Amino acid sequence: MYYIGVDLGGTNIAVGLVTREGSIVNKRSVPTGADRPFEEIFADMGKCTLALLDENGILADEVDCVGIGTPGTVDPDQGVLLYANNFKYGRNVPMRGLMQQYINKPVYLGNDANAAALGEVIAGAAKGVKNAVMVTLGTGVGGGIVIDGRVYEGQYSAAGEFGHIVLICGGEPCSCGRKGCWEAYASATALVRQTKEAMESHPESLMHRIVKEAGKVSGRTAFDAARQGDAAGQQVVDRYIFYIAEGLLDLINIFRPEVLIIGGGICNEGERLLNPLRAYLRANSYGEGLLPEQRLEVAKLGNDAGIIGAALMHA
Amino acid sequence: MYYIGVDLGGTNIAVGLVTREGSIVNKRSVPTGADRPFEEIFADMGKCTLALLDENGILADEVDCVGIGTPGTVDPDQGVLLYANNFKYGRNVPMRGLMQQYINKPVYLGNDANAAALGEVIAGAAKGVKNAVMVTLGTGVGGGIVIDGRVYEGQYSAAGEFGHIVLICGGEPCSCGRKGCWEAYASATALVRQTKEAMESHPESLMHRIVKEAGKVSGRTAFDAARQGDAAGQQVVDRYIFYIAEGLLDLINIFRPEVLIIGGGICNEGERLLNPLRAYLRANSYGEGLLPEQRLEVAKLGNDAGIIGAALMHA
Repeated sequence: MYYIGVDLGGTNIAVGLVTREGSIVNKRSVPTGADRPFEEIFADMGKCTLALLDENGILADEVDCVGIGTPGTVDPDQGVLLYANNFKYGRNVPMRGLMQQYINKPVYLGNDANAAALGEVIAGAAKGVKNAVMVTLGTGVGGGIVIDGRVYEGQYSAAGEFGHIVLICGGEPCSCGRKGCWEAYASATALVRQTKEAMESHPESLMHRIVKEAGKVSGRTAFDAARQGDAAGQQVVDRYIFYIAEGLLDLINIFRPEVLIIGGGICNEGERLLNPLRAYLRANSYGEGLLPEQRLEVAKLGNDAGIIGAALMHA
Repeated sequence: MYYIGVDLGGTNIAVGLVTREGSIVNKRSVPTGADRPFEEIFADMGKCTLALLDENGILADEVDCVGIGTPGTVDPDQGVLLYANNFKYGRNVPMRGLMQQYINKPVYLGNDANAAALGEVIAGAAKGVKNAVMVTLGTGVGGGIVIDGRVYEGQYSAAGEFGHIVLICGGEPCSCGRKGCWEAYASATALVRQTKEAMESHPESLMHRIVKEAGKVSGRTAFDAARQGDAAGQQVVDRYIFYIAEGLLDLINIFRPEVLIIGGGICNEGERLLNPLRAYLRANSYGEGLLPEQRLEVAKLGNDAGIIGAALMHA
């Protein structure tokens, strides 16, 4: 049997043919065109799925089910997207029904970040463990929870909104309406803001030259400057890692998972990020020195995690 | 079959005879004497258990298992308490073996706050739901997580340390070594500190008279003053409720549970606490206005929750 996993992203829809063991036999993608009516988006998704089956000589009979990982919150029983603020189509999209017009199989919906966490547990950074928590540090801060080998979605699949736990009560305004959320300090967006602020108060910093060459401030600016010995850049990096670490500590104290997985572009900084992060977590975890160190891993599968996790959500 | 649940508290050890359905047939308790060697403590626990069986005419054959809810973190596989900072006996206590010297049945260990959460799910405030999270606002802030009808303990049963998630990064020092933990703002201990601070800057406040009559500052002082129209007391209450609400929002955004349960002495304030709390949560939850309101309940079972939950942890 094969499982179809769909990662419905803001830019592309990726569809994969997945085995029960979590390997991707083949995959295809199609641009999302997120500002189109959802009927059109789902028509492309359905056709892409059929093309994938056709291309691999797989009959519908050999497909067990389809899993769709989507941003936003869903009603998994009804197979309906309740709302997703990144998509124009907004609310109450009958995703299951739309997909079943193309392939008449059980269709499951789940949150994309949860699906990615499951994918990493099935075949990636946390392979073989039962309980893992994953944080993705990107434009926002997303999260996924796997307990006992299954995604924990919470009601309306609204669990795992790690970006919206508070880091500094009453602090920086967050897109969610609350103030001081972790996302407002630890996302790539926040890092860019912090970098710009440091550049303003440090006209001598190397960061100015780096930005001139690169054409813009990015999440890499401060890290690049720090690597070259720039003090202001190092300060930004240290502070940003502190913000990440404080939120991760919350997740450790709440879940004490077998593996804590971090993903997102920032992980490309490798040991420059991980070493200070591990040191901070070691020194500040609850029960420090009495409990073994929390295992921290970097996500391994990239976008494939979402496909694999979506495919096997209900396998 | 009967299940024995033990709630190993700092003051008393409560032992209950529990049915599979979660009702307590009978219970006994004995002072803990927490500064004694653990052999003595467990001898009393074992004798108390045997006396309870004897008193109710229950044979060992009719007992399925024993569950012990203890403060601290345990290794459930080995049946060993890893450490508990409130007990003099400290670390690596072979609780299972000690208890089996008195009753030769399977003995399970779990964290006491997790056991209480499970008790409330089995027979109390969240009866019948699958996913619930419980917070106890006492001397500290404790927590328990129930997922799919079972306790989620995390590794070393170290999950659910809700008191040690950060509310104000770098803020008030916490007993855990971290700064700015929720417990340092939302525990009864923190409320007493906040009340004392407000009294110092408000010599005109009614709180001074209330404290003179009561003999000491307590978690009730500010609430009592506010009830009588005292502005400074009301400020303390508003701020304290804000701190509680901010941490509860974190738990909602992380778990989005079917029911969020709060327990602890402060819940005696009833609607004076719950109304503003519900209003704040309603206005600030992620996905506000799009998702139904989070269900918030006050713990119903008091100390019985820990007995019931411990008894049925592995039932």
